[in-house]
Amino acid sequence: MMLPHVTSEGNHRAVAVFDSGLGGLTVVRSLLEQMPGEDIVYLGDSARVPYGIKSLETVRRFAMEDAAFLSRFNPKMLVVACNTATAAAGEAIRSVSKVPVVDVIAPGVAAALGSTDGGIGVVATEATVRSRAYQRAIQAVDPDREVLSVACPLLVPIVEEGRSEEDPIVNHVLCDYLHDLQRMRPGALILGCTHYPLLGGAIGKLMGPRTRLISSAAAAAAEVRRRLDETDQRNSRSAGGRLECYTTDNPERFAELTERFGGRRADAVHYVGTDELETLSTKDDANDETS
Amino acid sequence: MMLPHVTSEGNHRAVAVFDSGLGGLTVVRSLLEQMPGEDIVYLGDSARVPYGIKSLETVRRFAMEDAAFLSRFNPKMLVVACNTATAAAGEAIRSVSKVPVVDVIAPGVAAALGSTDGGIGVVATEATVRSRAYQRAIQAVDPDREVLSVACPLLVPIVEEGRSEEDPIVNHVLCDYLHDLQRMRPGALILGCTHYPLLGGAIGKLMGPRTRLISSAAAAAAEVRRRLDETDQRNSRSAGGRLECYTTDNPERFAELTERFGGRRADAVHYVGTDELETLSTKDDANDETS
Repeated sequence: MMLPHVTSEGNHRAVAVFDSGLGGLTVVRSLLEQMPGEDIVYLGDSARVPYGIKSLETVRRFAMEDAAFLSRFNPKMLVVACNTATAAAGEAIRSVSKVPVVDVIAPGVAAALGSTDGGIGVVATEATVRSRAYQRAIQAVDPDREVLSVACPLLVPIVEEGRSEEDPIVNHVLCDYLHDLQRMRPGALILGCTHYPLLGGAIGKLMGPRTRLISSAAAAAAEVRRRLDETDQRNSRSAGGRLECYTTDNPERFAELTERFGGRRADAVHYVGTDELETLSTKDDANDETS
Repeated sequence: MMLPHVTSEGNHRAVAVFDSGLGGLTVVRSLLEQMPGEDIVYLGDSARVPYGIKSLETVRRFAMEDAAFLSRFNPKMLVVACNTATAAAGEAIRSVSKVPVVDVIAPGVAAALGSTDGGIGVVATEATVRSRAYQRAIQAVDPDREVLSVACPLLVPIVEEGRSEEDPIVNHVLCDYLHDLQRMRPGALILGCTHYPLLGGAIGKLMGPRTRLISSAAAAAAEVRRRLDETDQRNSRSAGGRLECYTTDNPERFAELTERFGGRRADAVHYVGTDELETLSTKDDANDETS
């Protein structure tokens, strides 16, 4: 494996971020907008993307490996920039991480609850919806709050395919998924997958001005900033943070797509094999067999 | 790992089949229709599905692991029931396999060439199209044959989501992908992904009666039968073959979906972890890093 470029001491340590693929770079975009001086080390598990159609047990194993890999860089904070990974492994990662962990569910839920007294809609992957993580997080604070979660399995492949918000197919698919949410007319709609902000314009048009869109990516970035400020851990630089990426699939292709998702080019993209990640696994015996 | 149930001697040995997930079960369906007495051992790499959006290097590594896993069952034949895996690793698997290998590209190409003197269209995954495997296979036989390959990245997630051929979104997406192929009016259209036969009705309607649809799944099954007959290796049973499945993700979910793709229930579905598969990997140094 490459020796890390970004590891450093104290407040110069990087913020570590991982996702199943490219989607988490929307969190990086928000992080760099808010704190352009921070170094970021990012892992995108593109060889095993997407997580959202897989079982929570499998996603937990992958997410634990991703987190273990990033811990090698001695980061000052770990960001789980994938809603499915948060739903499957947020607590498990927090219980073993030596550094503070920020996920993408809790900040989005807080932002949604703070923005409306009305119902809250959630669009997310199949696995996230199945986990009921949003439902539980919202109703832990407000048990009577109306929540409607809708799984949107095609949105990740649509974004990964590079279709624009003007594409008629995108609108056709969104109409199909958002039908019940349009009828519900929620006060807030959480974009509960880090790919979805790239379709935020089209989703906003379909939902209308009464529904406030909450980007879990932006909310997570704001939470990272708040916690770094609170513990006086912000990098003293005000600009020039380095974005260093690792991917489990082709690094050239990853590098090409970094700008679209992350808003800027990566300073470097390195390959790390899933075989190497698997050696970091906390063995998981949760998958039983059936006959 | 489970001790295999299906391993046996001589002609009673199983036919081993693998795919990135469920799609390869369409090959199993054709195999069992043609040879209901054969035992099948199937591996679906559902934890890392889909292969078709990933680099050929990564797919090759996964496919080599899948093939190595199935070789433990001492099969009489190995079927690479995934076009992307064939494109990425067909030759590599053949070069290390101790038993005959049937893939899903060569039989489909032979069937297409035999069915028309006109142009040949191919619909396939992004990785398969990028590999130019169909183009090369067709033009190796007939260098002047007109070939048009179109990548259809959304079709695998659409099939995996369970959308029917009557779904307006399915037709909308198919119209988008098939536009150039409709203009070409090919004599044959190869369904170059084992998921696509489940959309064969809708694709056939859009292409019209002049274009013959070639299912690479059915063509591969016919090739397996031909080669077993040729070498006198058919199971002496005429019915009652056992279908034993392994999956790298949740076996309950896999078991539920087996019938839709494979036309019958599996006799058993077992879990095998990708961490176990990774230990079978022929290490691949083809992924370089870029900065």
